[in-house]
Amino acid sequence: MTWVWLNGDMIEESALLSPFDRGFTLADGVFETIRATGTRPLWLADHLARLKAGASYYGIRVPLEDHVMAEAIAALLERSDHTESAVRVTLTRGPSHRRGLWPPDDPQAPTLLVTAAALAGTAPQRMTIARTTRRNDHSPLSRMKSLNYGDNLLARREAIGRGYGDALMLNSKGNVVCATAGNLFLRLDRRWVTPPVSDGALPGLARVRLIATIDAREATITEPMLWKSDAGFVSNSLGCTAIAELDGRGMADISEHVDLTSLYALSSPIAG
Amino acid sequence: MTWVWLNGDMIEESALLSPFDRGFTLADGVFETIRATGTRPLWLADHLARLKAGASYYGIRVPLEDHVMAEAIAALLERSDHTESAVRVTLTRGPSHRRGLWPPDDPQAPTLLVTAAALAGTAPQRMTIARTTRRNDHSPLSRMKSLNYGDNLLARREAIGRGYGDALMLNSKGNVVCATAGNLFLRLDRRWVTPPVSDGALPGLARVRLIATIDAREATITEPMLWKSDAGFVSNSLGCTAIAELDGRGMADISEHVDLTSLYALSSPIAG
Repeated sequence: MTWVWLNGDMIEESALLSPFDRGFTLADGVFETIRATGTRPLWLADHLARLKAGASYYGIRVPLEDHVMAEAIAALLERSDHTESAVRVTLTRGPSHRRGLWPPDDPQAPTLLVTAAALAGTAPQRMTIARTTRRNDHSPLSRMKSLNYGDNLLARREAIGRGYGDALMLNSKGNVVCATAGNLFLRLDRRWVTPPVSDGALPGLARVRLIATIDAREATITEPMLWKSDAGFVSNSLGCTAIAELDGRGMADISEHVDLTSLYALSSPIAG
Repeated sequence: MTWVWLNGDMIEESALLSPFDRGFTLADGVFETIRATGTRPLWLADHLARLKAGASYYGIRVPLEDHVMAEAIAALLERSDHTESAVRVTLTRGPSHRRGLWPPDDPQAPTLLVTAAALAGTAPQRMTIARTTRRNDHSPLSRMKSLNYGDNLLARREAIGRGYGDALMLNSKGNVVCATAGNLFLRLDRRWVTPPVSDGALPGLARVRLIATIDAREATITEPMLWKSDAGFVSNSLGCTAIAELDGRGMADISEHVDLTSLYALSSPIAG
């Protein structure tokens, strides 16, 4: 049985959403994926701040205050009973019976959904570069967790179709910018590097902490630089995944050099 | 009362979709918007062909044959009772309880939804160029009707916020490629021009018919070319909308020169 929290009610997952929800029809919404240990979410204040910033950019009203959101998440985690969880908070403009892109109905009735799933660790990944699509670094959506995951999906699908676990994505200029569900860190000349937000990288919550923790620098990563790197990993709010291979070239085992798990411990000095 | 057709049933719109539908969580799906007069849809075979091509690219199974889709659409139009309708067919990968981008559950249970709304004509629009986001011409999604409408939405929102009716969108190279919900046709030196699909334009069903009807040529449109044009309109499967003004510069009234309505008549030689 799967419980979800939807617009104030704790309900069993079944038929719940309107087919006119603009999150469904037009990807008109934002979301956050939050790691939790027991009933305690990690980096919650920052996740809610980013959700609100995205909603504000879209002009979507956030229907609940932070402390009510926190209570909803804790109540769902209590009900779900996983040791480690991936909590997803989805906020859309809600259902609209007006056809077309804009303007939607007024007053808005936003849809706010919280789900939780058991979280497992990830094994090191064999990765490639997606060649069928690119990340739109000209779009403000590249800097938000919007529902528009089509390009990332197609890149992941391409990688798996070609026998890899995941793909790195290029931006419109052909520079390497991220993986399909996380920020990229590469070791180049013994120093960690990650693409800047201005190249189309999401300002990830793990990313900003890692920049501080492992003293990474932000720099544009070209394809030739990628081939010179000797180690790498992908980070998101749920955890880090080491890159085992890049297009068949083996990468160094970084587990002895970098601690990629303590970042996510609730007792970490930069948790909260 | 609004009726919808969902996965084989004609139902009243209420709470219907799973919050785990990947169309909702990841914009993992495609759609078509189809004009209909009475119970007869226009260009249906072409719409269903494009839906199937998009679904095939995504790897989404189309759960019904064309003739069953046609019957569902006709039945919904009968029930909805509008003179002119905008029918929307949405196909998503369906609900998945597996977290993450890929792979989804197997076997798939795709979601297929048909809705219908009354269609009204559109008045000539005052338009501008969106400056906050651009169309991703590097993505195959630019050539499909995918659910990823975030950039178009933000462009439309920007235009309305600045006092215009709609926006033209630039691609990654800064060339003019389309409006937020239609293809662009401009008159330059007395000849109609429309941006090519390779610049990021959707291969619209009205677009291809217009290219033949008004003898338009496909060419990259730069911003300076835009300022030299003296007339223009936006086309989609529901109709054409004349451009009254472009960033405050008045455009010629084309209603005497081009017939933009007969294209959509069911009796037209290129209807069907």
